[in-house]
Amino acid sequence: MKPLVNRLTLIGLGLIGSSIARAARLKHVVGTIVAADGNAAVCERVRALGIADEVTDDLVAAVKDADCVILCVPVGANGAVAAIIGPHLKPGAIVSDVGSVKGAVVRDVAPHLPAGVHFVPAHPVAGTEYSGPDAGFATLFENRWCILTPPEGQDAAAIERVQRLWEGLGANVETMSAQHHDLVLAITSHVPHLIAYNLVGTAYDLESVVESEVIKFSAGGFRDSTRLASSDPTMWRDVFLNNKEAVLEMVARFNEDLAALARMIRWGDGDGLYDLFTRTRAIRRSIIASGQDTAAPNFGRGDGTAKTDR
Amino acid sequence: MKPLVNRLTLIGLGLIGSSIARAARLKHVVGTIVAADGNAAVCERVRALGIADEVTDDLVAAVKDADCVILCVPVGANGAVAAIIGPHLKPGAIVSDVGSVKGAVVRDVAPHLPAGVHFVPAHPVAGTEYSGPDAGFATLFENRWCILTPPEGQDAAAIERVQRLWEGLGANVETMSAQHHDLVLAITSHVPHLIAYNLVGTAYDLESVVESEVIKFSAGGFRDSTRLASSDPTMWRDVFLNNKEAVLEMVARFNEDLAALARMIRWGDGDGLYDLFTRTRAIRRSIIASGQDTAAPNFGRGDGTAKTDR
Repeated sequence: MKPLVNRLTLIGLGLIGSSIARAARLKHVVGTIVAADGNAAVCERVRALGIADEVTDDLVAAVKDADCVILCVPVGANGAVAAIIGPHLKPGAIVSDVGSVKGAVVRDVAPHLPAGVHFVPAHPVAGTEYSGPDAGFATLFENRWCILTPPEGQDAAAIERVQRLWEGLGANVETMSAQHHDLVLAITSHVPHLIAYNLVGTAYDLESVVESEVIKFSAGGFRDSTRLASSDPTMWRDVFLNNKEAVLEMVARFNEDLAALARMIRWGDGDGLYDLFTRTRAIRRSIIASGQDTAAPNFGRGDGTAKTDR
Repeated sequence: MKPLVNRLTLIGLGLIGSSIARAARLKHVVGTIVAADGNAAVCERVRALGIADEVTDDLVAAVKDADCVILCVPVGANGAVAAIIGPHLKPGAIVSDVGSVKGAVVRDVAPHLPAGVHFVPAHPVAGTEYSGPDAGFATLFENRWCILTPPEGQDAAAIERVQRLWEGLGANVETMSAQHHDLVLAITSHVPHLIAYNLVGTAYDLESVVESEVIKFSAGGFRDSTRLASSDPTMWRDVFLNNKEAVLEMVARFNEDLAALARMIRWGDGDGLYDLFTRTRAIRRSIIASGQDTAAPNFGRGDGTAKTDR
């Protein structure tokens, strides 16, 4: 089979970049995989892992002959990387990214790209709480969604190429505007991370409950939040700073709802609580039915609860 | 080995009650296991599952000769059950429970117990998002903590018996006051459930983002919250109504912290965000080190992320 992309350059070899490299090789969708990372230690790990055909810390050299370049850096770093590589991209090349925010990335990257280079922003909605080139794996995108937010009037062939690339890596692809993407992700990803970070911070700062108690009794539910709250600090700082409006809007709604819920508790409105708790059950069932989560108790964690010795 | 309890009666055969039955038999810590549930359909399932020696929907008959009775019903139902069984308990019997709130259970149960019956409230901090007799399993309490909150002056031998019973079921045991328990569990269990329910409710009510989008892109983080938000509505209604003060105090703190966090986002305080996101990472590491959660990415969910094909 002819590869979808002859020469693919990945800039940034963290969890996502290194997973693309692994999946691209496993699925034979790319000719040559070039890994570029400004951090020499990361380049060394990528070389040792053997997940790319070429590895370099020279971003300009890395993009010179690339048919497709995917920026896999924290959202806030995309503009600076685009400024460096822009003048060296070959005519007809496709530039894409994997950022969790799309409006800001379009704003920061597009001005640096020369005419004749096609920009197709993308966001694979997949990940784990770990980061770095060792954390990636080839099946990360399997049955996950990748959202494309091509600017209006973008070259249809370029969009299709990026779509087929992500399908080749195992993902389902959906297209929407950058603005809608940022709203949807605010509620499905950004605010969940924010309240997880916040809850863990609140627990950490209590003086009436000691840290050892929080840890011991975390199986009561708290431990679930700690997974999102251990995600990469740089990545998430950049997400919140670059999706300010949508995140603050969703936080405001979350707050209104929480105030109503607290009021139900204060005034003993058991029926109101019961109604909400019944409605929320339905959403998990749909998520499991759609293949976006496991039905195993406790996420199938590797403790007693994962066993089937019923 | 002589069993720790000759005749153990479990009242309420849901997730916890049925798990105690299974674990007690597997570990040979109990002579005869009597399962009592006011719901005839539950009794029928328990009979079919074969996890108890005797099964009845007659609570009075079930406790008559019991050496130990454990109430495994929603927190709000303990008082009514205690009123029914109280007059029929044998002198020297031990009564315990598994409620997620301890102050309210002591308040509701103690008045119904005759002199000479020992009340040792307990709370095994373990569970899954599923409920009912089919959801239980024998290893649920393995390496989890069970908190005892014996009233002052309670018979030391009875406390020790309950402690050894829980250790026999696989749990670690800690003792504290009911008041401190309710504060600790508010932050480690009750508020995490409340914000999970709230987040899912907020997402459900949005008009700008449709439900199918919330479901599709839930792997961005949202899906984690849906597990707690699919827990048993009756159980959780009762928890919130019966631990009002501590839950509202912790919600107030959570809100203050979230307001500060939203302000950092609005004013672009990247260093403040980064600092918090770095601190919160440490807690997950401690939880994993203590054996209270798995280190596997994404909780080791049974999707691509659980594989080790790196």
